[in-house]
Amino acid sequence: MPRQITAYSNPLIKRVRDLRDKRHRREARQFLAEGLRILTEARDTGRLPRLLFFAEASAAHPLVRALIWDVEAAGFEAIETTPDILSKLSGKDNPQAVVGVFDEFDLELDELDRSASGIWLVAERLRDPGNLGTILRTGDAVGAGGLILVGECVDPFSVEAVRASMGALFTVPVVRAEWAAFLAWLRTGPGQLVGLSLDTEHDYRAARYAAPTFLLTGNEAQGMPADYAAACDLLVKIPMLGRADSLNAAVATAVMAYEVLAQQRG
Amino acid sequence: MPRQITAYSNPLIKRVRDLRDKRHRREARQFLAEGLRILTEARDTGRLPRLLFFAEASAAHPLVRALIWDVEAAGFEAIETTPDILSKLSGKDNPQAVVGVFDEFDLELDELDRSASGIWLVAERLRDPGNLGTILRTGDAVGAGGLILVGECVDPFSVEAVRASMGALFTVPVVRAEWAAFLAWLRTGPGQLVGLSLDTEHDYRAARYAAPTFLLTGNEAQGMPADYAAACDLLVKIPMLGRADSLNAAVATAVMAYEVLAQQRG
Repeated sequence: MPRQITAYSNPLIKRVRDLRDKRHRREARQFLAEGLRILTEARDTGRLPRLLFFAEASAAHPLVRALIWDVEAAGFEAIETTPDILSKLSGKDNPQAVVGVFDEFDLELDELDRSASGIWLVAERLRDPGNLGTILRTGDAVGAGGLILVGECVDPFSVEAVRASMGALFTVPVVRAEWAAFLAWLRTGPGQLVGLSLDTEHDYRAARYAAPTFLLTGNEAQGMPADYAAACDLLVKIPMLGRADSLNAAVATAVMAYEVLAQQRG
Repeated sequence: MPRQITAYSNPLIKRVRDLRDKRHRREARQFLAEGLRILTEARDTGRLPRLLFFAEASAAHPLVRALIWDVEAAGFEAIETTPDILSKLSGKDNPQAVVGVFDEFDLELDELDRSASGIWLVAERLRDPGNLGTILRTGDAVGAGGLILVGECVDPFSVEAVRASMGALFTVPVVRAEWAAFLAWLRTGPGQLVGLSLDTEHDYRAARYAAPTFLLTGNEAQGMPADYAAACDLLVKIPMLGRADSLNAAVATAVMAYEVLAQQRG
């Protein structure tokens, strides 16, 4: 039987709300995900929240009931609370029916199986959480083996990134690594490192992508450093016919990833 | 010689700040754009702000000086203000060097020349300003003839959309139209209406796109209504290999647009 928390001053509520902040996430190694769709998706991939918050009004919804049942059956806790507190946990005026607290689950490079997919996404110094979530969503769609975040990237477990991923955070393996460690790991096995660049004449449609291809996208404002580009097996460019000199990072990654997918599916 | 405004209570500052609000934009038919890069881009496409705000510290920058010169030469006004007021105008803690107030400039359907490009983007009930700006940025990159916003879309002149467009708002023609009016206009001339859909077996890479192709993307959450899909000459789908059933709307538009571009460039 779920307990109730109706006071915003409750210390557990404060602790959970603090997970919106990067420093607290890092200490707790936990993060927030919200919404019935994303939490059901998470459950279907085998991940349940340690804490599940729901409003009384949504407890009658069969999917919410199923989540509560599964959370309690796993020995975790479901907590009934107010719409106002749900709003404060999620930072949205119009709160989702449920908010969950999950343990973080990013992997180490050594845990990746590079034969699992012909496409891997690599992003370096990605700064925008919406871009990160959107890249995860694209990664799910193309069946990417995972997303490797190189250097000082935005936190994949931030509320905005989880939201933009639309659940793909739970389906696409995520690794955080330094560039040197990534490159060392990459060269221990097969894999073509393909960098997206403005300084090349190779059109992305003319290049050929062998499996596994690792697609490297650089920082939103600066692109990738020259030595990263030099380490790539191949640099390709996406044609730009207008006045702008670059695409949004998540868009560029998707255009590339779908070209690789089309070639590898033959 | 630019005048100075240093008081946040100045009525002009209040009026300009109000342009962050949709209702005030609609009344004034003006909008805000910020940042030296975007304002310089705008100037290069022939658009100058009626009001240009800059901080004293940035007045020494040659691009800022050039903007001030051009704005005043056009009979418009440059106003020196404080970093604090610039922050409040842009809604960002870390203000841009310049903020401009521009007249809105969306077009009517009849003003479009459909022979100007082989690719046109059409979005219906697009809700996210970041998606809208990102689609404009992609439109610039593929040389799209324009972006036609059908039905109740987010405002293309919102601060967030302008920011995400990275200046493409100034280079890609934008039209707002009702569906019936769009369809009537479309059928007065050549043009293939291609809808992105989940309910079709036509892979987007197998289809053939004649110029001009009008790419229709539906609402982020719901896709397009059945009668809109029925009005399309062709429905295509982008393969989804993972658990998710859709891509981000701006990503899907870009993947489609680059396929059309690749085919039309031969």
